[in-house]
Amino acid sequence: MKKLWQRCHAATMARGEYSIIQDAAILTDGARIEWIGPREAAPDIGECERVDLEGAWVTPGLIDCHTHLVFGGDRSAEFEERLQGVSYADIAARGGGIASTVRATREASEDALFETAKSRALGLMREGVTALEVKSGYGLDLENERKMLAVARRLADALPLTVRATCLAAHALPPEYANRADDYIAYVCDEMLPALVADGLVDAVDAFCEHIAFSTQQVERVFRRAHELGVPVKLHAEQLSSLHGSSLAARYQALSADHLEYMTEEDAIAMARSGTVAVLLPGAFYMLRETQSPPVDALRRHRVPIALASDLNPGTSPALSLRLMLNMGCTLFRMTPEEALASVTVHAARALGLDATHGSLEAGKVADFVAWRIGRPAELAYWLGGALANRVVRGGEEIDFDRIAQ
Amino acid sequence: MKKLWQRCHAATMARGEYSIIQDAAILTDGARIEWIGPREAAPDIGECERVDLEGAWVTPGLIDCHTHLVFGGDRSAEFEERLQGVSYADIAARGGGIASTVRATREASEDALFETAKSRALGLMREGVTALEVKSGYGLDLENERKMLAVARRLADALPLTVRATCLAAHALPPEYANRADDYIAYVCDEMLPALVADGLVDAVDAFCEHIAFSTQQVERVFRRAHELGVPVKLHAEQLSSLHGSSLAARYQALSADHLEYMTEEDAIAMARSGTVAVLLPGAFYMLRETQSPPVDALRRHRVPIALASDLNPGTSPALSLRLMLNMGCTLFRMTPEEALASVTVHAARALGLDATHGSLEAGKVADFVAWRIGRPAELAYWLGGALANRVVRGGEEIDFDRIAQ
Ligand SMILES: [Zn+2]
Ligand SMILES: [Zn+2]
Repeated sequence: MKKLWQRCHAATMARGEYSIIQDAAILTDGARIEWIGPREAAPDIGECERVDLEGAWVTPGLIDCHTHLVFGGDRSAEFEERLQGVSYADIAARGGGIASTVRATREASEDALFETAKSRALGLMREGVTALEVKSGYGLDLENERKMLAVARRLADALPLTVRATCLAAHALPPEYANRADDYIAYVCDEMLPALVADGLVDAVDAFCEHIAFSTQQVERVFRRAHELGVPVKLHAEQLSSLHGSSLAARYQALSADHLEYMTEEDAIAMARSGTVAVLLPGAFYMLRETQSPPVDALRRHRVPIALASDLNPGTSPALSLRLMLNMGCTLFRMTPEEALASVTVHAARALGLDATHGSLEAGKVADFVAWRIGRPAELAYWLGGALANRVVRGGEEIDFDRIAQ
Repeated sequence: MKKLWQRCHAATMARGEYSIIQDAAILTDGARIEWIGPREAAPDIGECERVDLEGAWVTPGLIDCHTHLVFGGDRSAEFEERLQGVSYADIAARGGGIASTVRATREASEDALFETAKSRALGLMREGVTALEVKSGYGLDLENERKMLAVARRLADALPLTVRATCLAAHALPPEYANRADDYIAYVCDEMLPALVADGLVDAVDAFCEHIAFSTQQVERVFRRAHELGVPVKLHAEQLSSLHGSSLAARYQALSADHLEYMTEEDAIAMARSGTVAVLLPGAFYMLRETQSPPVDALRRHRVPIALASDLNPGTSPALSLRLMLNMGCTLFRMTPEEALASVTVHAARALGLDATHGSLEAGKVADFVAWRIGRPAELAYWLGGALANRVVRGGEEIDFDRIAQ
């Protein structure tokens, strides 16, 4: 069924720029965009449904390319204790931090994880997210990593949402492998990855490269195995120190390297060469009161595509909004609103390997878009928090949130 | 009509603390709380409506005690230009900054201002705000300040919302008084304030004390006239430099002094003595990338009540969410979640002169409360952005937002 969406302006984000069409029309055929352009140039179509967008600005559906939105428990108690003056050391000694999320995630049933993850995904969708990534990484054994990745697949079945599942088994050392990081990496490479890939649960493989997590040598073993299994890689790199994980990621043609506060210009050059996307995560930067900004100027200079993402996770970025990250990317990292919008559309699509089909409004791509009741695209980055009125279209169908809410 | 609200826990915020009641019940009689306590101790009442709150946590309705939510235009274009590298000087030379908001507000009809303000107020209400302050200050002449204050009164009529209207005529120098600040202050004191107070449009009088706005001497003239007219005062003070406006405010028994990044310990002592509330505005702090934090420790030491507010305004804090300010108060100012919640309930009520009737869940106070689907009160400050599921009760009636949305 064809539909002509009209009475709107479009920021198509083609070529990573606003690429504005005033008084636009969008012709969709089922789940695809058949044509987009100025309304007066619309092709002559016969019978079709006409949808009045009432003067809205249309952007591509937003894409959140880095989330940990499947997890058990939350860490609000720890958040409160730290502000009451309890030290990190005391919290860790009591089994707090990521260990507590691993425990809660292992204890939770798949159904329980699905329900909380669905509620968080719906929150993101209401503000225009039509595709997102979900990482595992709080299971840290085969059974529990499988459970998390299965929840990611169920989200895609249950919701009008594109979901990419990333295996982050190399996120942290599980307690049963204390002081045996190399043994854990062997378990990840020899048992977990082959089994999870065989189950069809893995779209990409990720790791956390940091002195408090895994070394570049350990990460490289994971990357090699991922490539043998035919799965692309990505990496948490240079968040707290400079280990040149992003250069390593580039050598393995990673989809993205993420965080990057401490990356060097050489890392940026390597990423530019391999076409690896720089995913910046201002929510964690803000929550940790980090003062070292990622080198946005160097990334621009070397034309590394920049994405922004929520990093939604219970410890360092309990961020329930991707649009807030646009404001933070502008305010904290001095990105422009246009760069910020490109970062959650075209560049985020590329970070998920979806750039052939998603991320911009162009003929042939999926009909995932958002009609915003705003006066100009910069408002998406300008308003701080809150909900901007919108209508969300996914695969050519407007989402009726009242119908799908629990 | 009496109602018994049950199956809930309550953070009553009595005495500025959580003051938690597990398995609570709230008995309301019309718009008032008749009784609140543990459900098992509920008084024997006969016929009455019983409302199941499904295990929610109930807090007092949130109070946003510092907003400029009535304004014409927005400043997203300027936000974008600055990030593209255009200088403040160039923007000011083109009539940007507050001058552009004054122009747009003067040009807007009262109806147009009402519609945009209503939409912003509804956004705040959906996340639990049941009372808020609205300042004038973009009219800067009698006719346009009256128009803004009339919009504040209309909001209270049109929405289930308590609105306090503050005359901020001494916000900035209007262009027609360029280089004649004393003359403008005379106009404010001799004509505007008496007329607007006589019209019943003014609940408090505010001013902006700063080297780029008005001096302490000029502010004092405004305060003296406000007191002659029987209206309480408040002040924008120490945002960019230390002029001891907050001590001046204390001498005039101000309801609040607001911003306060550059206040001294002596200012805190003066405010403690006068019972003046310290209203901190993390949205502006964040948007301006301010590095000087308000002295929270000194305020605690001298027991100055601290409120947080959105400062919703188109220039320095386009913040559409009060709950986000709780996270910012904790993350940026190191307040605890309990202090943050007290800051938008009991202390915000006091900053508006509403503490006898609002701000905590206690017998005799208004039945304004929010039932949150969360596991513990600290989650209100912990989750970054997004919308937390809730039900909002104002004056003993649950708000049906679908019915009142435009
Ligand atoms: Zn992450
Ligand atoms: Zn203000």
